[in-house]
Amino acid sequence: MSKKIRVGVAGYGTIGQRLADGVAMQGDMELVGIADLAPTLSIRALAERDMIGANNVEYKLYLVDGADKGQFDALGIPTAGSFEDLCKSVDIMLDSAPGGVGAKNKLIYEKLGVKAIFQGGEKNSVADVFFHGYANFEKGVGANYLKLTSCNTTGLIRSVDALDRAIGIEKVAITIIRRVADPGDYHRGLTNALQMEKAPSHQALDLMTIMPHVNATGILVHTPVTHGHIITVVATAKDGKKITREQALEVFQKHPRIRVVSIDEGFKGNASLFKYARDLGNRRGDMYEIAIWEDSIVESGNDIMYAINIPQESVTIPETIDGIRAATQMQTTREAGTAETNKYLGIGKFKK
Amino acid sequence: MSKKIRVGVAGYGTIGQRLADGVAMQGDMELVGIADLAPTLSIRALAERDMIGANNVEYKLYLVDGADKGQFDALGIPTAGSFEDLCKSVDIMLDSAPGGVGAKNKLIYEKLGVKAIFQGGEKNSVADVFFHGYANFEKGVGANYLKLTSCNTTGLIRSVDALDRAIGIEKVAITIIRRVADPGDYHRGLTNALQMEKAPSHQALDLMTIMPHVNATGILVHTPVTHGHIITVVATAKDGKKITREQALEVFQKHPRIRVVSIDEGFKGNASLFKYARDLGNRRGDMYEIAIWEDSIVESGNDIMYAINIPQESVTIPETIDGIRAATQMQTTREAGTAETNKYLGIGKFKK
Amino acid sequence: MSKKIRVGVAGYGTIGQRLADGVAMQGDMELVGIADLAPTLSIRALAERDMIGANNVEYKLYLVDGADKGQFDALGIPTAGSFEDLCKSVDIMLDSAPGGVGAKNKLIYEKLGVKAIFQGGEKNSVADVFFHGYANFEKGVGANYLKLTSCNTTGLIRSVDALDRAIGIEKVAITIIRRVADPGDYHRGLTNALQMEKAPSHQALDLMTIMPHVNATGILVHTPVTHGHIITVVATAKDGKKITREQALEVFQKHPRIRVVSIDEGFKGNASLFKYARDLGNRRGDMYEIAIWEDSIVESGNDIMYAINIPQESVTIPETIDGIRAATQMQTTREAGTAETNKYLGIGKFKK
Amino acid sequence: MSKKIRVGVAGYGTIGQRLADGVAMQGDMELVGIADLAPTLSIRALAERDMIGANNVEYKLYLVDGADKGQFDALGIPTAGSFEDLCKSVDIMLDSAPGGVGAKNKLIYEKLGVKAIFQGGEKNSVADVFFHGYANFEKGVGANYLKLTSCNTTGLIRSVDALDRAIGIEKVAITIIRRVADPGDYHRGLTNALQMEKAPSHQALDLMTIMPHVNATGILVHTPVTHGHIITVVATAKDGKKITREQALEVFQKHPRIRVVSIDEGFKGNASLFKYARDLGNRRGDMYEIAIWEDSIVESGNDIMYAINIPQESVTIPETIDGIRAATQMQTTREAGTAETNKYLGIGKFKK
Repeated sequence: MSKKIRVGVAGYGTIGQRLADGVAMQGDMELVGIADLAPTLSIRALAERDMIGANNVEYKLYLVDGADKGQFDALGIPTAGSFEDLCKSVDIMLDSAPGGVGAKNKLIYEKLGVKAIFQGGEKNSVADVFFHGYANFEKGVGANYLKLTSCNTTGLIRSVDALDRAIGIEKVAITIIRRVADPGDYHRGLTNALQMEKAPSHQALDLMTIMPHVNATGILVHTPVTHGHIITVVATAKDGKKITREQALEVFQKHPRIRVVSIDEGFKGNASLFKYARDLGNRRGDMYEIAIWEDSIVESGNDIMYAINIPQESVTIPETIDGIRAATQMQTTREAGTAETNKYLGIGKFKK
Repeated sequence: MSKKIRVGVAGYGTIGQRLADGVAMQGDMELVGIADLAPTLSIRALAERDMIGANNVEYKLYLVDGADKGQFDALGIPTAGSFEDLCKSVDIMLDSAPGGVGAKNKLIYEKLGVKAIFQGGEKNSVADVFFHGYANFEKGVGANYLKLTSCNTTGLIRSVDALDRAIGIEKVAITIIRRVADPGDYHRGLTNALQMEKAPSHQALDLMTIMPHVNATGILVHTPVTHGHIITVVATAKDGKKITREQALEVFQKHPRIRVVSIDEGFKGNASLFKYARDLGNRRGDMYEIAIWEDSIVESGNDIMYAINIPQESVTIPETIDGIRAATQMQTTREAGTAETNKYLGIGKFKK
Repeated sequence: MSKKIRVGVAGYGTIGQRLADGVAMQGDMELVGIADLAPTLSIRALAERDMIGANNVEYKLYLVDGADKGQFDALGIPTAGSFEDLCKSVDIMLDSAPGGVGAKNKLIYEKLGVKAIFQGGEKNSVADVFFHGYANFEKGVGANYLKLTSCNTTGLIRSVDALDRAIGIEKVAITIIRRVADPGDYHRGLTNALQMEKAPSHQALDLMTIMPHVNATGILVHTPVTHGHIITVVATAKDGKKITREQALEVFQKHPRIRVVSIDEGFKGNASLFKYARDLGNRRGDMYEIAIWEDSIVESGNDIMYAINIPQESVTIPETIDGIRAATQMQTTREAGTAETNKYLGIGKFKK
Repeated sequence: MSKKIRVGVAGYGTIGQRLADGVAMQGDMELVGIADLAPTLSIRALAERDMIGANNVEYKLYLVDGADKGQFDALGIPTAGSFEDLCKSVDIMLDSAPGGVGAKNKLIYEKLGVKAIFQGGEKNSVADVFFHGYANFEKGVGANYLKLTSCNTTGLIRSVDALDRAIGIEKVAITIIRRVADPGDYHRGLTNALQMEKAPSHQALDLMTIMPHVNATGILVHTPVTHGHIITVVATAKDGKKITREQALEVFQKHPRIRVVSIDEGFKGNASLFKYARDLGNRRGDMYEIAIWEDSIVESGNDIMYAINIPQESVTIPETIDGIRAATQMQTTREAGTAETNKYLGIGKFKK
């Protein structure tokens, strides 16, 4: 591809920052700019680094409607234009605006004829395709509006789709041990309590939207931690077939976006993976891969049970990049699209 | 029964205090005394109340080998004799000494010909029968040495045994979201992390020891909270039968030691149940019943999935009292034994 | 006093429940009833106990404006009348309605000529006197409307007032390590973060309102725990006088509502005191006394520094009862009033 | 200085990794290598990055006595020699081995005539000088063995030394709200409790060792969080002088290693600073500066009170680099030494 696909990011929050980083790392994409409303701490941090982000790329800041440019000027934060200016300069927008704002932004995207990918906070109806890079890449090819699965669903589907392609899956029952806040959050906290949500969890329902041939249900429990959801999965194969521990392990070990880890190596829990990503020197201490504990995989009769770690801040980035490739037809197959994303994000290099 | 069964308690820790309370509440039992080593805060609290415990019963304190009586005297804490003095005056000892000490105490019990019930911290080999009041009461009848299931296993079995007797259960896959410390603990803490244990969890293995016809496995995750474990269960009926939500709900609603609760009522999580027990005016804020969330019960194909709350400090007390009844043959059937325990502990009064 | 003072409680939340308990324990007071809006878990727990509360007293339930009596009927919860019915039957109302509601309730109190005591959530202007049982009892004598200091301020003032009366205090600088939620709360949580509030903290300002001759300032930090605030105090004596460790310790040891504790005894932190109150068999596991760690008291030049534990759920109950005594002139001096409150609440019995 | 100072790091744990990073960023130093015992997760992460660390520098791994080289070989982790090999190739060792090991390592350093800087876990007697880059740089000039102050003391002294040089400080009373574990720790946790330590805290005593003309005392409380200690300081000037809020603020704003932040900007607590460092793109999400909240600074009579955030993982790195400069006489004054360290670490660039 000789000409780079031009990408903009709406909303520079927890996800938006990481989308910008992810795009900046793609050799065949150009990050045209980011858009936001106020000089948040994340914007200030960017300005303290002279607007230079991942891969030494400059993140040009555009202001959305309602922003007070004077506030940015007073703080010496350079701006590059309006939200519409940004939209006019790109092939596709990654919309990580707060929940509900994406639907309003879509009117602008439609007006300007720009494609867009929405994050999990928007309603499914905002998009033509509810998308997952590995599970239904082909559905997104050439589409104008995609919506990504949420963090838990994205990670969960990686593992279930992999088992399904290798063995054939009929049913999953999941327990989501949900981290309740991100590091730096003060508003969604929980203190010394496990909080229930009504079953079935939306992640199970979302999985069935992406993988309609699988019966899924689940229970979600909020826990007072910030580093990584843990999901346990009980998966049943089609036609009463048995799934062995060895089969499941082999499937997981082959997947570029799954790290198979063990307690004995030192991966004692979700905080180990957060620490490991920092020790890797990854920007923001991010991790794109989910982890599956080798020593959590057990057979339950013919079923297989295992536990996944979901790095909630960054796990959806690769599949969103996949979405850019599908929607703009940079690649038109799952294999080709995900491989390019992985290459530029450095995913799978840990595999032998 | 004209003569009361005489009971002693070894170890006045988190469990021992509650065993003493439970015995003190039984109209057909006499709490002869408690035994401990040092003037812990729990002993000091008892002394501040002039050694008067539950049901206005005096808790006489006996000192185990190695205790320094001078320490107690200096604090004005009255003592009643030695550990052997206590053992000689009882029909049965409830041993809640720290893990491993029970095995040593057993030598004394054997020497003096006194029965004993051990808690979950001891090895199974310390006892003749691994016991659960509802699941295998009859096995404990007349036995000399029982060992109780641990808190999670006790609560879990209540629900699985109930389903099994009503419907027939072949298999369970459990996820234990384990509270990591009790209120007041400083030594077992976990901060902002979910910690994995190698699967299968011991609770699944223990369930199979008590209910050998059920295939059980599970994954345990430690969470940084102190009020109540939460367990999710995926249960499969025998012979490919379907378990409906209504069937499961009915089974749970009938069980005296299960509270069916809902999020809409205000039971948002494990801390609600802790608070509710305090609001009930229960001594120490204890709860003997497990809770199952009505809005967690979902069908997974033919299987049923649900979530349990386990009040870890007090859940094993009723089954231990059942054990006294079985071992001393006060009652010889599950129905009669558990009914007497429930009556004196006030269990089931919340049922309509 | 031959005739008992008749007391009502508006709002049966965390504080209201404990006010009702406190009144029920006073031999010279009659708890006429409690008032609330909805069948909360606390009301359901009371109903499960057949409306019998502390000291075997029946808590009659009155419904405030806007309550749906049908909801209570459907749950079998007996009600006794309207909020005005309750107000008409009492000498004084303890208002622990949610913040802001007290000001509206006051209109009713004024109309019916009933005295009232408001809790810390209301504005000071709601009351004639901002009250503390030990610091300014006499100001409350005969007053119609009192407002109690909040939990932190109540406990803090106990210690500062005691030092002031014994030695003379000119200045305090406090650091409040605030527990962020109560056990059972899901809405005020904080996860893995310490949150700052702008200085000076309101507790320092409130102290100066009650003790205007003392200069007070302070910094408040929220911490993700539920059992007991901890406050450190740096206190400066008048006229450059030195306060010795021994002097301070003696003052604290003499105060009936202060427990002097130590790490060596086993009081390792705030959770030890929560556990100790449960082990005492106190209703709801409540503690009326603050604790001061003997091994936290250190000299800083001429100043004295020490750390207090504040049991936030129950600490204001004794001073509120003092307020009833003052407002209704049951007693007219600090010494007589607080002594009666202490006697009925069992406070100070732990003193040698 | 034409020739680079050669530096080795013993122990690649939380501090050791960051010391290596810090040295790798110094244009006038060469990181010869790091030494460790086992293929920890941190070593594995380094190996996954082909042993390339900060500033694109290769971190050569040397094995300490007792290491099993076969383990490293099996994992494909390259090693470069023995601990003595490393020591022989450097001018100075930064010793961040586990507490107590440094004293043993010192025998090797002495034998080989290599200088060393020890971290806070070692006893003061291991070193000739207890060192702080800003407070006593000159004492370290030419010394063979330095010991760094611990993380809390390092950050605390930055602020007290700054006030002292500008105004003259006689006395400080501190309250340390201590984070109990680092992200990734499972062994030092605390759950829903604030834990007391006996006063005075060692940090106050350490401050007096470095600044003997200041009277310091303090109380330390452990809190269940992982991101940054918070310390409140009450500082008294010499000779009864008043310290105004404006004076203190100006002093803090001028210091290169202090960030003055505010709640209004979005710095709500310690987790905001952790997040900000990640958003800056700093390696491992580290922060070298302490932060002082502008809106925490209040006058207490003539005293000044304020709150500091201490990024415990990385705060001692700059002062340790200062120590290299002092010990090896790269610079011989506080001003020159700290300025070079700051330049290479990018410290102070946020200042206007």
